[in-house]
Amino acid sequence: MFRRLGLIVGLALAPLAAQATGQVSDFTLENGLQVVVVEDHRSPSVTHMIWYRAGAADELPGQGGVAHLLEHLMFNSTDDMEAGEFSATVEANGGSDNAFTSWDYTAYHQTVSADRLGLMMQMEADRMRDLVLVPEEVETEISVVLEERAQRTDGSPGALFNEQMSATYFRNHAYGRPIIGWRHEIQNLTIEMLQDWYDLHYHPNNAILVVAGDVTPEEVRALAEEHYGPIPASPDIASVESRMRPVEPPQNALRRVYYEDDRVANPYVSILFPVDDTLVDDVRSAATMELLRAVLSDSDFTSVFARELQIENELSLFAAAYYSATSLDHRPFTLLNMPVPGRSLEQAEDDILAVIDEFLEDGIDEEAFNRILFQWEASQIYAQDDAAGQAQSLGATLTTGFTVEDWENWLDITATITTDEVMEMARALFAQDPAVIGYLDRPAPDADETEEVSQ
Amino acid sequence: MFRRLGLIVGLALAPLAAQATGQVSDFTLENGLQVVVVEDHRSPSVTHMIWYRAGAADELPGQGGVAHLLEHLMFNSTDDMEAGEFSATVEANGGSDNAFTSWDYTAYHQTVSADRLGLMMQMEADRMRDLVLVPEEVETEISVVLEERAQRTDGSPGALFNEQMSATYFRNHAYGRPIIGWRHEIQNLTIEMLQDWYDLHYHPNNAILVVAGDVTPEEVRALAEEHYGPIPASPDIASVESRMRPVEPPQNALRRVYYEDDRVANPYVSILFPVDDTLVDDVRSAATMELLRAVLSDSDFTSVFARELQIENELSLFAAAYYSATSLDHRPFTLLNMPVPGRSLEQAEDDILAVIDEFLEDGIDEEAFNRILFQWEASQIYAQDDAAGQAQSLGATLTTGFTVEDWENWLDITATITTDEVMEMARALFAQDPAVIGYLDRPAPDADETEEVSQ
Repeated sequence: MFRRLGLIVGLALAPLAAQATGQVSDFTLENGLQVVVVEDHRSPSVTHMIWYRAGAADELPGQGGVAHLLEHLMFNSTDDMEAGEFSATVEANGGSDNAFTSWDYTAYHQTVSADRLGLMMQMEADRMRDLVLVPEEVETEISVVLEERAQRTDGSPGALFNEQMSATYFRNHAYGRPIIGWRHEIQNLTIEMLQDWYDLHYHPNNAILVVAGDVTPEEVRALAEEHYGPIPASPDIASVESRMRPVEPPQNALRRVYYEDDRVANPYVSILFPVDDTLVDDVRSAATMELLRAVLSDSDFTSVFARELQIENELSLFAAAYYSATSLDHRPFTLLNMPVPGRSLEQAEDDILAVIDEFLEDGIDEEAFNRILFQWEASQIYAQDDAAGQAQSLGATLTTGFTVEDWENWLDITATITTDEVMEMARALFAQDPAVIGYLDRPAPDADETEEVSQ
Repeated sequence: MFRRLGLIVGLALAPLAAQATGQVSDFTLENGLQVVVVEDHRSPSVTHMIWYRAGAADELPGQGGVAHLLEHLMFNSTDDMEAGEFSATVEANGGSDNAFTSWDYTAYHQTVSADRLGLMMQMEADRMRDLVLVPEEVETEISVVLEERAQRTDGSPGALFNEQMSATYFRNHAYGRPIIGWRHEIQNLTIEMLQDWYDLHYHPNNAILVVAGDVTPEEVRALAEEHYGPIPASPDIASVESRMRPVEPPQNALRRVYYEDDRVANPYVSILFPVDDTLVDDVRSAATMELLRAVLSDSDFTSVFARELQIENELSLFAAAYYSATSLDHRPFTLLNMPVPGRSLEQAEDDILAVIDEFLEDGIDEEAFNRILFQWEASQIYAQDDAAGQAQSLGATLTTGFTVEDWENWLDITATITTDEVMEMARALFAQDPAVIGYLDRPAPDADETEEVSQ
């Protein structure tokens, strides 16, 4: 039986990127398909990706998981292909393929020898409009996705905790719902919901074609005209600018989440600070926030958290900050602190907030900043070092409200950001109260164990 | 200028009811309009209500408040009437009128002399399909609603707290959004959203006509056929059974909400226990839950909370339980405890939960139960004592998944519920962990004030 585990992309896979090693061209077909080509002739392969501007946050209420389930179905029957034939053909041609679903986009990609690009486009164009939803295949994929959820979410205390944290943080926006869907909603997804989702979103004028590798823009244009060109634009497509997303009301009350699970090996506390337009509204502010995150938690030894929580004071097993700029709508800035055994979550919460206070007072050491900036840039460049990485990064950038130009200028802009700007961002971010503080913990042991040091 | 403050119905206005004093008839017109008549000839007046099976929980994401705003617009222009003419006409005929919006329904009602029933139907039928949305009137009503929100919600710490409690409890269901809408969404409502809402929901086959008072079913039928009969059914109406409402995922993590506001006079704690189909799935279980609520908190002296928290131990200024059976989807069972000055919210939380534990052990005193049941029944009968009360109660019942028969049998069923059943319900309800615990408090004073009794 053909079974396939799709990929759920919780946070964007790659941050906004980077001076591509190759030349970037972009143009749009008459039917609205945006095409971006990254020439990279270092190896004779090519990565072909189709990104749809539709993800889990665009789903209707009650239909959670339909975006991801449809992604699974895209590897099943079309009018020209049988279930499984797509990936089997890619493999028979020496290539590899997969797909992933995020809140903001759904993407399909193949990496093959450059001379097979036409075949990839032919097959991808086929399933863009000619998917055939077969009841038995839908049923099978629902089972596959339920098993995927069992493994990745229900089998993971951290994932279940994150699900509740997001549901608590977002009171209005669909980012509060899991990409894979709540179990009871996955079970109730119907072929009609899938068809509606497909008919609404899978059109050339709602997609971005990214081709990176051993090709020229002229070759890509000719092939794209041949294979995607004949597909008509849909008159119903809302552009990325008008994607209807509910906006969060003001954060006016701290919420605390307590998730307990026997399977938790190391308890931790997670602290979510709100981010909104007043903090991040362009590439420069987004990059500044990414740098703040890097200063706090990147690198093994020189980041603020590593130094203060792990190395010098041995308070934490692990501490980190999370933030992703490639998100169509705002997501919070997250601090995580996993205390050393014997240290409580209350202490861990105080510890990491105390480090933040200290950081706001002391500021950033210029030398450390330059080291972190250098490492951060290196990691960005490394992530883009092959054609697949470039295509990945470009697609995520373009489906979350940025432009090709933003993508190309990203590192240049970052290089001019000063420590003063990062500190200004830090002061604005942490002047706010946290919106949500969560404890992932084991259930409490017997009372006498916990009380032995008090009174 | 014509200004009108509509009514927001947070919890159902009246619980499921009661042996009506009059005879109840119901029938359905060919266009699907359900008609319910309560004959009550004690006074020469009549209450005429139209209930639409559409409320705030049926709104699209991002359009919060459109149901309530449309309710306001319904008092403005139609093809036959000018803004304000509807209510002016009712008044000129010696009657009164109003409307209200809940999560599950929107209702319009007039009480007039029985001989004006035809006029009311004529006007109500007119605005059922012939509303004219005028840009200036929409703009005016948005201002009116924003002012209403400023007064009722933003001006009330308790209302702001409740908004955050609901948003935290409901992670998937639209009950997590306020009926009146978030301020930023009210501001962005458009004439197109209002028109779409009106076109989707305002049809005879999505409405229930309730007429109570000095009329006969034959008279009502003749008038209804004359005025509502010509309006065609909409082919797009989802019946109440199929109203698409997202279902909540399992409650697996306690959330705590901390809302602080200088204007809080008396801080309190609110504790939400989840209710689902395993607890309440028919009239009997719904009535049992209502009785449990009554046992815990009805009456000034004999309820469990009054006795244990207010009178005997003087721990609380006020303590209560809340639950509403007339809700299309499940809402939580809520405990509230407002401690006496000097007692902390942590203590108040422990106090009320300790009383629940004690109650589960001690059970219900039969004599007290009978007294509470008697009072509860009396209050139900009193609430239905006039035609308007009966129409109100019937409409709320019929728009939240119950039938006329359920409404008629409600008190009979309640009368046979035993203390054992109530205790079984209590054990099942409180065997669960709370889903959300919230503190409504003033901002903390200086540290030295709070620390004077510790250590």
